[in-house]
Amino acid sequence: MIDSPRDLFLKCREYRDSYDARAQGFYPYFRSIEGTRGNHVICGGEEKIMIGSNNYLGLAHDPRVVEAACQATREYGSGCTGSRLLNGSLRIHEELEEALAAFLDREAVLLFSTGFFANQGALSALTEEGDVILCDRENHASIIDGCAFAPAKLIPFRHNAPESLENRLKRVDPAAGRLLAVDGVFSMSGDLVNLPPMVEIAKKHHCRVYVDEAHSLGVLGPNGRGSVHHFGLNKEVDVVMGTFSKSLGSMGGFIAGDGEMIEYLRHRARCLIFTASLAPAVTGGVLKALQIMQEEPERLDALWRNTRKMHEGFLSMGFKIGTTKSPIVPILIGSERGSFQFAQRLFEEGVFATPAIYPAVKYGEAIVRTSYMATHSEEDLNRVLEVFGKLAKELGTFDDPAYANPGRRKNVFDFRLSEQGREAAVRNNPGTNP
Amino acid sequence: MIDSPRDLFLKCREYRDSYDARAQGFYPYFRSIEGTRGNHVICGGEEKIMIGSNNYLGLAHDPRVVEAACQATREYGSGCTGSRLLNGSLRIHEELEEALAAFLDREAVLLFSTGFFANQGALSALTEEGDVILCDRENHASIIDGCAFAPAKLIPFRHNAPESLENRLKRVDPAAGRLLAVDGVFSMSGDLVNLPPMVEIAKKHHCRVYVDEAHSLGVLGPNGRGSVHHFGLNKEVDVVMGTFSKSLGSMGGFIAGDGEMIEYLRHRARCLIFTASLAPAVTGGVLKALQIMQEEPERLDALWRNTRKMHEGFLSMGFKIGTTKSPIVPILIGSERGSFQFAQRLFEEGVFATPAIYPAVKYGEAIVRTSYMATHSEEDLNRVLEVFGKLAKELGTFDDPAYANPGRRKNVFDFRLSEQGREAAVRNNPGTNP
Repeated sequence: MIDSPRDLFLKCREYRDSYDARAQGFYPYFRSIEGTRGNHVICGGEEKIMIGSNNYLGLAHDPRVVEAACQATREYGSGCTGSRLLNGSLRIHEELEEALAAFLDREAVLLFSTGFFANQGALSALTEEGDVILCDRENHASIIDGCAFAPAKLIPFRHNAPESLENRLKRVDPAAGRLLAVDGVFSMSGDLVNLPPMVEIAKKHHCRVYVDEAHSLGVLGPNGRGSVHHFGLNKEVDVVMGTFSKSLGSMGGFIAGDGEMIEYLRHRARCLIFTASLAPAVTGGVLKALQIMQEEPERLDALWRNTRKMHEGFLSMGFKIGTTKSPIVPILIGSERGSFQFAQRLFEEGVFATPAIYPAVKYGEAIVRTSYMATHSEEDLNRVLEVFGKLAKELGTFDDPAYANPGRRKNVFDFRLSEQGREAAVRNNPGTNP
Repeated sequence: MIDSPRDLFLKCREYRDSYDARAQGFYPYFRSIEGTRGNHVICGGEEKIMIGSNNYLGLAHDPRVVEAACQATREYGSGCTGSRLLNGSLRIHEELEEALAAFLDREAVLLFSTGFFANQGALSALTEEGDVILCDRENHASIIDGCAFAPAKLIPFRHNAPESLENRLKRVDPAAGRLLAVDGVFSMSGDLVNLPPMVEIAKKHHCRVYVDEAHSLGVLGPNGRGSVHHFGLNKEVDVVMGTFSKSLGSMGGFIAGDGEMIEYLRHRARCLIFTASLAPAVTGGVLKALQIMQEEPERLDALWRNTRKMHEGFLSMGFKIGTTKSPIVPILIGSERGSFQFAQRLFEEGVFATPAIYPAVKYGEAIVRTSYMATHSEEDLNRVLEVFGKLAKELGTFDDPAYANPGRRKNVFDFRLSEQGREAAVRNNPGTNP
């Protein structure tokens, strides 16, 4: 007779975290949005100020973007029902690729159906067995997963630390192909990549450079061209990745670079070849958003005006916001439970933001992640600051020792790992930020 | 000084396949579609009959689906600019999940931003180190890649062969968790999975069952509920995966199953957690398509009437169409070059279909993949048969020995691998079908 093997579903039966958080009244995820105008949303019939999105320029709800999405759907249908390779290449996809290539001053661009896929597809297709990918420890999860999928070996280096990058590069097999992969703006800390010295080190060590502009496109650089243009390093960076699900207000992503590299990816990136192409609505909406972004630089100005106001506002109230240089403002809370409670109370007070806990941030340094938009009003932002001030008094933040020391409180919500697994991961994990 | 390491971009510089195919006048991929009504498309200013899509019910261009996509965009914007987990859960996402769960008679459903992600996310989250995933050798690439990403080991078995499955299961470590993963309808051969004996064997060996209904949803079973319902095995199958980029006319995918499994995936599937949610247009369009699919069974009848006509038509003309049981009809050509030439001549004659070569199909058995829709007219289909007849005389097919023997002709287009790599892969590869 057959022995009784492990049941794959046992872990689903034993899983408790989200049920426990709900039972305790502060489950912060999958909040149902019944209506939205970007800067404000409706949840449970009540209006909330949204400071938890990546809709930096507010373009996802611009009537011209909405109409362009509808127009593309009327023209091309609701979907392409096939991959770019086979039957899903619309003229509008090519138009978007051409517009992005011109905008970013690159020879060619290739669309992917998600930003995650752009990283996964490019990193796995561009590297081979024996190559290495040098990753900032705070890189986005899709870079980490792209590396896990790639034949190359991931080598993590200390967040935003060129000297750590160089130490790692010095120890790489002399024959190995090398790729430096970094976020332009880091999604949790809001940090701006320290790109100039990194590029210099990379060049010295014959290492190609890959920058993920997910949170920097539409945020940094002339007309929102991203961190690479912000630093004037467009000639030095080999591959630029970007997404459509942040400033451009939709979903999907792209890789930009030289024509031969893009032609290679078109025929080698498996998650491109084996996935249906972007829906016409998405493609048409992004094309229009890209145009508006270039024609209306006042949006970028408004974004930065709001960003500066919030940086200053939080700092003047004594909040710890780390080293952010962007509209992403992490509010350091400390314990996981604390960050969940804080987010829940924010929600009750009419402010929508989400906590981020390990492994999205360092263990014991849970945050409430906030982010700001060009379309937030002065009134919105004043209200947000007011609520944060009230809740800091009510609940405490990182300065409260009970929150600061993860050993002092039971962490209610283990996002991904068992306690042992978490400890091992804290030592070994190169970072898995959303 | 530093040695000169391998340059990652060298492979891009050396890559020639697509350039060569273009130079020879039969590059068949990334054909630009300037206009489409589903069954007909415009390319280079000329109308073509589309027999290369997965738009089986023609719903991608139904005016009601188009209007629902537009309505959702007007209501919710062009995108959600965040993941379901954090800030991208719209009420309309939940409505689609509820509608799909009811349609498929499952406790719960979870949307993913692509069908590929549904496989990647579920297979990697549901398995652990030491588990095994038993895969039909013709499973879709996203299952193969999902397995590659999963901690479990992939064990391939012979296509649609229950005895091969059982042999493999008998040799699995007695303690290992097991998952059988199969396509309901195989994307290249059009074969219907031999599910009843496989489920019986799986049960005997304590193996969970996972069925990818990408090409069977909207095609098989009552009201298009898929292969699992077609066989009356809904209680026996543990996980159902489906896509929105085929019969439902858009993009994205889902996992359906019991509530605890879905709740687990919601918090563990990394490509769900770290990806922006489906755009409102997509979600609204799919909701409407799902409703029409249930209310208008005559579409399914028309699809099968057209399918039978084409099966019979091709067979009566002497074409080899394998063992298809679905609207996917592979026309066996033989050599890669032959399949490219055939597809090119089809295109010139006003018929849009694409070749599939190794590794999508067996080496030396290149096909032109065709697929049919409810909305193809009698006239469309007669014209397709007429053109195929003409071209078979002109170019030959599998019966022509020059095409049948891959050694007799130089294969022009190596889709993925070097010659050596290809030979090794033919021996070892578990199948990587688009």
